[in-house]
Amino acid sequence: MTKEELLELLHGNSNRIAKLHSMFTQMNAVDIAEIFVDTDRDTVIQIFRLLPKSMAADVFSYIDPDEQQIIIEALTDREVSDIMNKLFVDDAVDMIEEMPAAVVNRLLQIVPDEKRKQINQILQYPDDSAGSIMTTEYVELRESASIIEAFEHIRTIGINKETIYTSYVIKPNRLLVGIVSAKGLMLAEPRDTIGHIMKTNFVFVHTTDDREIVAGLFKKYNLLSMPVVDREQHLVGIITVDDVMQVIEEENTEDFEKMAALNPSEEPYLKTSVLALTRNRILWLLFLMLSATITGGVIANFEEALAVLPMLVAFIPMLMDTGGNAGSQTSTLIIRGMALGEISFRDLALVWWKELRVGLLCGLGLGLINYLRIYLMNGKNGILSITVSLSLLITVVMAKTIGCILPMAAKKLKVDPAIMAAPIITTIVDGASLVVYLSIAKALFRI
Amino acid sequence: MTKEELLELLHGNSNRIAKLHSMFTQMNAVDIAEIFVDTDRDTVIQIFRLLPKSMAADVFSYIDPDEQQIIIEALTDREVSDIMNKLFVDDAVDMIEEMPAAVVNRLLQIVPDEKRKQINQILQYPDDSAGSIMTTEYVELRESASIIEAFEHIRTIGINKETIYTSYVIKPNRLLVGIVSAKGLMLAEPRDTIGHIMKTNFVFVHTTDDREIVAGLFKKYNLLSMPVVDREQHLVGIITVDDVMQVIEEENTEDFEKMAALNPSEEPYLKTSVLALTRNRILWLLFLMLSATITGGVIANFEEALAVLPMLVAFIPMLMDTGGNAGSQTSTLIIRGMALGEISFRDLALVWWKELRVGLLCGLGLGLINYLRIYLMNGKNGILSITVSLSLLITVVMAKTIGCILPMAAKKLKVDPAIMAAPIITTIVDGASLVVYLSIAKALFRI
Repeated sequence: MTKEELLELLHGNSNRIAKLHSMFTQMNAVDIAEIFVDTDRDTVIQIFRLLPKSMAADVFSYIDPDEQQIIIEALTDREVSDIMNKLFVDDAVDMIEEMPAAVVNRLLQIVPDEKRKQINQILQYPDDSAGSIMTTEYVELRESASIIEAFEHIRTIGINKETIYTSYVIKPNRLLVGIVSAKGLMLAEPRDTIGHIMKTNFVFVHTTDDREIVAGLFKKYNLLSMPVVDREQHLVGIITVDDVMQVIEEENTEDFEKMAALNPSEEPYLKTSVLALTRNRILWLLFLMLSATITGGVIANFEEALAVLPMLVAFIPMLMDTGGNAGSQTSTLIIRGMALGEISFRDLALVWWKELRVGLLCGLGLGLINYLRIYLMNGKNGILSITVSLSLLITVVMAKTIGCILPMAAKKLKVDPAIMAAPIITTIVDGASLVVYLSIAKALFRI
Repeated sequence: MTKEELLELLHGNSNRIAKLHSMFTQMNAVDIAEIFVDTDRDTVIQIFRLLPKSMAADVFSYIDPDEQQIIIEALTDREVSDIMNKLFVDDAVDMIEEMPAAVVNRLLQIVPDEKRKQINQILQYPDDSAGSIMTTEYVELRESASIIEAFEHIRTIGINKETIYTSYVIKPNRLLVGIVSAKGLMLAEPRDTIGHIMKTNFVFVHTTDDREIVAGLFKKYNLLSMPVVDREQHLVGIITVDDVMQVIEEENTEDFEKMAALNPSEEPYLKTSVLALTRNRILWLLFLMLSATITGGVIANFEEALAVLPMLVAFIPMLMDTGGNAGSQTSTLIIRGMALGEISFRDLALVWWKELRVGLLCGLGLGLINYLRIYLMNGKNGILSITVSLSLLITVVMAKTIGCILPMAAKKLKVDPAIMAAPIITTIVDGASLVVYLSIAKALFRI
């Protein structure tokens, strides 16, 4: 059913409301959460109160922060406490991070001590760490337990765990010694012990590891979940694949933004204010604008040549654009290749040798076509044609070289390679190509 | 243990080889597969033969195509048949797609009929469709089965299924009527029936749906797997989250490449030949180069103005670069926002109004700083300063407008918005900004 039909039912008589209530039980929590988007305050509260109790927390975890806040402010302490108790810790943390201070204070006062401790623990991990994306609802087993006992245990507590498809085997001091998949449990002999069937060479991360490392391991090993341990190998949480997919998209968005000279923002575009958007852009624009004035200085130095041959100016945009495009093609491939772990610094010579040949081929092709075009359209001026085409060839080769070396050097220097993308490469190549162009012109025309 | 230690053991005496064999059983298939990278032919074959039989197919599925081919060519038909039989259909298809025709013919002759039929079925789906990334190893259940019977069934056949965490409930004619999670099974009453506990409002796709739609649904509903049905709602396969993560990364790579004027390539950079790299770049470079000559034509039209005031030329690079950067900032945010489903065409007016204000703020800031810089550094030439700064303001506002309208219009016209990124936007803004700049100069300097 569509949102419109739902709202119609909602504002109808009580008979209809009973119908609505029973319909929610048939729906997916994600779809119910979508109804709240761009819906007015009163309706948001009304719909939320109509949800079956067993679904309320689940739906709540998918609702946008703005509407979550409306709901929290409308509910009684008791109702909020109930929701908070049923929310997984990672969802509770995500929500708290978006709330204003007053709401956070109320929330932390309302939640039970144990949950508050867990929330505070996760909140204290740095933003991009494994600890910040983990949750603490997982199934623990002991080595001595039998498969039957393990099943019994999961049947009792599993309903409140984020995943039951991997159980974590710990010693009494919380040392993580193995993992057991639900598949392993289901296929094992009922009288076998957990210690016997558990996998001891499992993949794990530390709380302070970067979340990009986490994403890389999930992709490499095709994981559904992963344990997070502290420095003494004690189990403190797990990360599930749904959160990792979100991390991957966020990291990609960050790269797209950095590569376009934008300060990364975590807010969706439509929810970002004009001032914030401006702030994320203007410093980079300013830096690049001032850098480009250096290129202007190059031109000023060749003023007498341009005065003698004003037609030279007409080819500047084409040279600058082609250099920028050639450079950003290369830098994009290299930055992406490094982000995916396909290219590393030790491949520098290999990459550069490749780009040199690609640059020569592209440069020769473009140069030739350009030569013919200028020769035919500019009164068969051979010297002009050769000046522009030779400059173009050198520009493309330079652009490809700079486009591969700068991002790889950045990586080596532990600077994010995504910074060394089109905008900076273009600015550098522009200046260099104009020096080449105007020098060749001076030499060939004997100015 | 490192690859070096392994190779040392491998080339040692037979006692060591027994040790190696037992060590493989302790290792993760993904890690074993990594040993094959950049390893010589004989060693590849030697290692593969040493693998425990139960792991060979699993390891094989993670090996790079080049080494897969070496192994297939070295193995007997019987050994290959054994591997092919144990490979999941989606992994078999991935491999076959990378092999030369002669190898494919041999493989399809060797595999059992049933498997060949499944492989051929998946091979026939279009490259970017849901059908092309699905696999056919899933658990089927009937509505009438009890929970106990379902468990028994999974215990018997589960070992050969890609996932047992979701079972698919079908009617005798293969009509898909529901899904049951392993969690649901484990938490249910043993005597209950599948028909009673199954979920009937599940998420599914059709074989011909685009794989981007699949990725979007996995992200939206936090799925681990998803059924694929044909036009009559008959179950034909499932898609698992590990394959979807790969799709997400591939789609992102494609966007990065398109946004940098590159034809998308599926090969990793280091494995792509110089000729293929050149082919993926040169047509775009050529198209953009020829487009940029239009900008050159603009300049030629203003030749007399530039002859009177040659200093005007020095500001062209700064204007062009700033316009390009301002435009690509906007187009990147819009393209990414649309890819993530955060922005759609009906937001056009909202987005444009936002960008207009951001453009004015950025343009005013940059214009002001530029005004002061030129005024102080160019002999307090007020008219020159105002000419450049006013052009800059107009350029930035134009660039932001073009940067949001073009990608959104492309989306509306069912063209991939990623094409409307920095390279094209820059070329368009360049021409427009030079017309503005030189027109203002003519007017203010009364040339």
